[in-house]
Amino acid sequence: MSLRIPGPTPCPENVLQAMSKQMINHRGKEFGTLIQQVTSRLKELFQTKGDVLILTSSGTGSMEAAIVNSLSPGDKVLSLSNGVFGDRFATIAERFGAEVTRLTFEWGRAIDPDAAKPALESDPKIKAVLVTHNETSTGVTNDLAAVANVAKQYDKLLLVDAISSLGCIDLQVDAWGCDVVVTGSQKGWMVPPGLAFVSVSQRGWQAHAEAKMPRFYWDFSKAKDFLGKSQTPWTPAVSVFYALGIALEMMAEEGLPNIFARHAHLGQRTREGVKALGLSLFADEKHASNTVTAISSPSGVDSKRLVDTVREEHGIVLAGGQGNLAGKIFRIGHLGFVTEADIDGVIAQLRLALPKLGYKLPAG
Amino acid sequence: MSLRIPGPTPCPENVLQAMSKQMINHRGKEFGTLIQQVTSRLKELFQTKGDVLILTSSGTGSMEAAIVNSLSPGDKVLSLSNGVFGDRFATIAERFGAEVTRLTFEWGRAIDPDAAKPALESDPKIKAVLVTHNETSTGVTNDLAAVANVAKQYDKLLLVDAISSLGCIDLQVDAWGCDVVVTGSQKGWMVPPGLAFVSVSQRGWQAHAEAKMPRFYWDFSKAKDFLGKSQTPWTPAVSVFYALGIALEMMAEEGLPNIFARHAHLGQRTREGVKALGLSLFADEKHASNTVTAISSPSGVDSKRLVDTVREEHGIVLAGGQGNLAGKIFRIGHLGFVTEADIDGVIAQLRLALPKLGYKLPAG
Repeated sequence: MSLRIPGPTPCPENVLQAMSKQMINHRGKEFGTLIQQVTSRLKELFQTKGDVLILTSSGTGSMEAAIVNSLSPGDKVLSLSNGVFGDRFATIAERFGAEVTRLTFEWGRAIDPDAAKPALESDPKIKAVLVTHNETSTGVTNDLAAVANVAKQYDKLLLVDAISSLGCIDLQVDAWGCDVVVTGSQKGWMVPPGLAFVSVSQRGWQAHAEAKMPRFYWDFSKAKDFLGKSQTPWTPAVSVFYALGIALEMMAEEGLPNIFARHAHLGQRTREGVKALGLSLFADEKHASNTVTAISSPSGVDSKRLVDTVREEHGIVLAGGQGNLAGKIFRIGHLGFVTEADIDGVIAQLRLALPKLGYKLPAG
Repeated sequence: MSLRIPGPTPCPENVLQAMSKQMINHRGKEFGTLIQQVTSRLKELFQTKGDVLILTSSGTGSMEAAIVNSLSPGDKVLSLSNGVFGDRFATIAERFGAEVTRLTFEWGRAIDPDAAKPALESDPKIKAVLVTHNETSTGVTNDLAAVANVAKQYDKLLLVDAISSLGCIDLQVDAWGCDVVVTGSQKGWMVPPGLAFVSVSQRGWQAHAEAKMPRFYWDFSKAKDFLGKSQTPWTPAVSVFYALGIALEMMAEEGLPNIFARHAHLGQRTREGVKALGLSLFADEKHASNTVTAISSPSGVDSKRLVDTVREEHGIVLAGGQGNLAGKIFRIGHLGFVTEADIDGVIAQLRLALPKLGYKLPAG
């Protein structure tokens, strides 16, 4: 069974093998060497000289961590959202007492960075901007550099969900001025789920010092203090650290420019393959994601049935639509440990599966 | 290197091998079967017919989850603490706005359940009692049945940190009336860290429905809703689920009475071995834990140096003291996948190591 969902993504064999290593003391030297090594490599991949902290949680946990470490109840926040995950980020902020202005954009379209300006101008009390770099639910990559530019222009804190982009698509944490950026191990990192990574800028630390939302498990100061002792405050998912050590070595060997180029190529190839089947991309192609492609189900075909057929009869696991898009779109993940042959395989199987559901392939 | 700390504990080889299995869709059938299977086995081991939820986090995360799902800011809470972890539970509650009355007991001594009565009588507004079943920092097992009895007598909600006891020491969640009980995968469960398990009673659910502390990642309702679909709300630590499946099968084969008897035997053997070396148990022996033994460092011996020597020259990793006990005690973990031979090995190496630090072994 080939896994082509946007996470968990398949892991390389040597990464999986590392998972089966026996436990060690998470307060001992061996773990200390490992956490320093992976933290230093993560900083390179985050393109930051700031801090990167590692939490034991899913990506959603790190979104909560970004909120509660940066804000106080009553703080005004501008949320820019064009999908399920953008909405989730805003909901978390509201749940912890932030006053959120939600600027929503059509699902499948990119966020318009300029649209944020009137909102920021009309309410100078807005403290932070929340944004999703790559909206996994619709296959859209937002122009984070431009959003960051607007946030800086208005002197706002910028919190970024980069769960399905970091390590796959260019994200220049320092150069663009992103204050808190979060991602999860089971995405581009080629590692099983269980860890999340968070960068914190100088400005992020200032916000943290003032932030009054309640926190304990997620506390960035605790994580930083313990990292100073080459530890985590709470028992970490040690096995996922082992896997991460191997995966980051592979990523360092490949090099960031090659990783970005590979994902760009895979994204392009997926989109071309899908279009050659006569299908329509759900996302605006100018902003189509290089880590996940969303495809509109052809008329008369329920995307749930298509996903079931492809899985049960063709051995490939695709993702359906989330929220309002259930039944209407399906999604192909192409982030992390994925090759051109994997993508060609998905397209070939779709070519066989679609006619079973009454879809007529284009001639030629 | 043999790991004899109170977590992470060593894992059986087949549990470790399960960790290296390739990723699957966490919203697919295979994961669905697995989560239902492990949940049903966990319920047996928790001795509950109530709900058991699985979170991706360390044990501390599940302590936070117990608090924020059960209480509202301003709620009065009685904390019974005799060590680092009892104090931590109270601190988390305070951090989220509970008004905590701290009843503290001498470290190394057990909590006196009767001592809770005057506090509960004098302040009828107290809503919940927080207690640690097995205090890992001092090697004391508190009489949870008696504490639960007092809590029920005064009609209070009971939140229990059973991180280093559940699955090792008898804990009858339903029979004793424990409302929320939390534990972590890296303790008695013989599984790497990354998952935490939480039981919630009917009364726990009532408290949850009224509880207003902010929560998103830890939300018990979300976890229960998704469990109904054989999923978790957020991407879980899939590999640790694989390992848990194997470990729970082993535990089911051994059977709870045998597991408890084995830990009782290992605890007894550790205490006897330590005393035969002329050392003193730190904990009151009547309440000595069967999962971790704390030993007072003999006069003139810094326990940190002893732990270093035993690790570097004798290949065994012991734990030092935490908080005020740093340098003063050392601890031997004997929970999970541990045998009599492992304990005898620790004692034999201590016999060789202690004289190097100037300690005179008793004659004979």
